[in-house]
Amino acid sequence: MNNKYDVVIIGGGPAGLTAGIYTSRDNLKSLIIEKGIIGGNMNNAEIIDNYPGFPEGVNGPELANLMHRQAKRYGLETIAAEVIAIKDLGNKKLLQTSDGDIIARAVIIAGGSEKLKLSIPGEKEFTGRGVSYCTTCDAFFFRNKNVVVVGGGNSAIYEAMHLTKFASKIYIIHRRNQLRATAILQERARAETKIKFILDTIVKEIQGKDFVQKLVLENVKTGKKSTLEVDGVFISIGLKPNTDFVKDLLSLDKQGHIITDENMNTETAGILAAGDIRSGAIRQITTAAGDGTIAAIEAKRFIDDQ
Amino acid sequence: MNNKYDVVIIGGGPAGLTAGIYTSRDNLKSLIIEKGIIGGNMNNAEIIDNYPGFPEGVNGPELANLMHRQAKRYGLETIAAEVIAIKDLGNKKLLQTSDGDIIARAVIIAGGSEKLKLSIPGEKEFTGRGVSYCTTCDAFFFRNKNVVVVGGGNSAIYEAMHLTKFASKIYIIHRRNQLRATAILQERARAETKIKFILDTIVKEIQGKDFVQKLVLENVKTGKKSTLEVDGVFISIGLKPNTDFVKDLLSLDKQGHIITDENMNTETAGILAAGDIRSGAIRQITTAAGDGTIAAIEAKRFIDDQ
Repeated sequence: MNNKYDVVIIGGGPAGLTAGIYTSRDNLKSLIIEKGIIGGNMNNAEIIDNYPGFPEGVNGPELANLMHRQAKRYGLETIAAEVIAIKDLGNKKLLQTSDGDIIARAVIIAGGSEKLKLSIPGEKEFTGRGVSYCTTCDAFFFRNKNVVVVGGGNSAIYEAMHLTKFASKIYIIHRRNQLRATAILQERARAETKIKFILDTIVKEIQGKDFVQKLVLENVKTGKKSTLEVDGVFISIGLKPNTDFVKDLLSLDKQGHIITDENMNTETAGILAAGDIRSGAIRQITTAAGDGTIAAIEAKRFIDDQ
Repeated sequence: MNNKYDVVIIGGGPAGLTAGIYTSRDNLKSLIIEKGIIGGNMNNAEIIDNYPGFPEGVNGPELANLMHRQAKRYGLETIAAEVIAIKDLGNKKLLQTSDGDIIARAVIIAGGSEKLKLSIPGEKEFTGRGVSYCTTCDAFFFRNKNVVVVGGGNSAIYEAMHLTKFASKIYIIHRRNQLRATAILQERARAETKIKFILDTIVKEIQGKDFVQKLVLENVKTGKKSTLEVDGVFISIGLKPNTDFVKDLLSLDKQGHIITDENMNTETAGILAAGDIRSGAIRQITTAAGDGTIAAIEAKRFIDDQ
């Protein structure tokens, strides 16, 4: 059984695929382990406008496919499996997966970070059609439209502030009567005439035809229901990185993201992290690709030094 | 005269173009000042194989053009000029250029870093056709070929070590009889049977037909000339970033690269640096694009905070 690789990459999003292009092209025997679909969060984007090189934009699954073909051209292998645990054996790493054990000389963890979902009717159906988890990616599509930001933390307020450059009206909907965001950010948001707060309120359902048209809201104190007509919903209620399987091996931040140095090294030599799973990541395809490149070069350096 | 911008980007390589895509798309009035050709060092690459999204590779000037069209789509402006000095006026920056003064709220310096040239006959002519300044980019094209690395520092040795995975034979040519590289690196290189050292020697000329075929060498002690048949020449004699115009304003490292934090901030608030001009940059298009993205997001944050 051939289960030995120079580099094993966990996760097949843009960070993992870029790392795979670099390590394979460097003649390192490389494997991506992906439990879902190759491409990661790119698969959720109908159109990606800000990845340089595609002036008319590019469909997310299409960009994922282009990157994957590129990596395969240099010999990258891919398997569908879930990594259960990593054991550090010094100059070798043992990966226990749902498909058996795999040995790697270096490991790049690029499993991404999911935005938390509301898990309400219509959310999944309208994702990419009015429902978004990223204003930097999608605010541009909501010029002169009415949108909602769901959430009460710093990120939610930043997203709302960002949207003021594009949208006509922004409603911040939060389930409590106090925001978690810092006072100065709240103050700044309250000074924006375009921003309106709807507190003590949850979104029960997202409705529409081809695109989002309205939300069903419920006041959590009175139980009273209402509807709100909007063109878009930005959901900003937190992140969930896929790091449970390394929580005993690596240092994680409060949200569970992996802490690395600027060269993508974790505390464990030969185990690197790249992309959205890293603490402090910017969550863009460009930065994921940059991280993947650096992690690949560092993985090669680690292997060469053994 | 309309010479006021939200963001002025100095340099139109991949870092600058990516920053321009992001700032323009964020509704910030943005300008790239480029003294040469838009695209920077990408213009020297006949084929770029490792920028994710192009499985068959992409011609360098073509990728530059795609990125430029994308940025222009969101309103990015470009002028051909040279920046002579930047003056920090706090929440505004004054740029003195060969085309007059320009005011910016934030500045992103992305002027790249040139690899030093040998400045010998044939070098320019065969660049991209056997002459290269980047093994990570081009080693793959020299499988089972004979190549030369010119230089004696750590980078030259790293390039030679990297080439052992591809080339049949690697000659390291250095003009002195001692390398500058650290002892441990030299030791490792000497242990490689594929690597041969030619010391006290300079390359006088690069000759060939369509591609590099041979070098004219001269021993600097004896003055004796000789020829060496090779398929490729990697030149690794140092870097020259374009930072003279900011040397009194910003902290530079020994080579002259701009020192930033991991968010691309220089010591001067509102002036950022991205790509190869940064100290410690990896010099890949992916990492330049990542840097450009982060610098754009930070520039926006700086402007919003004023």
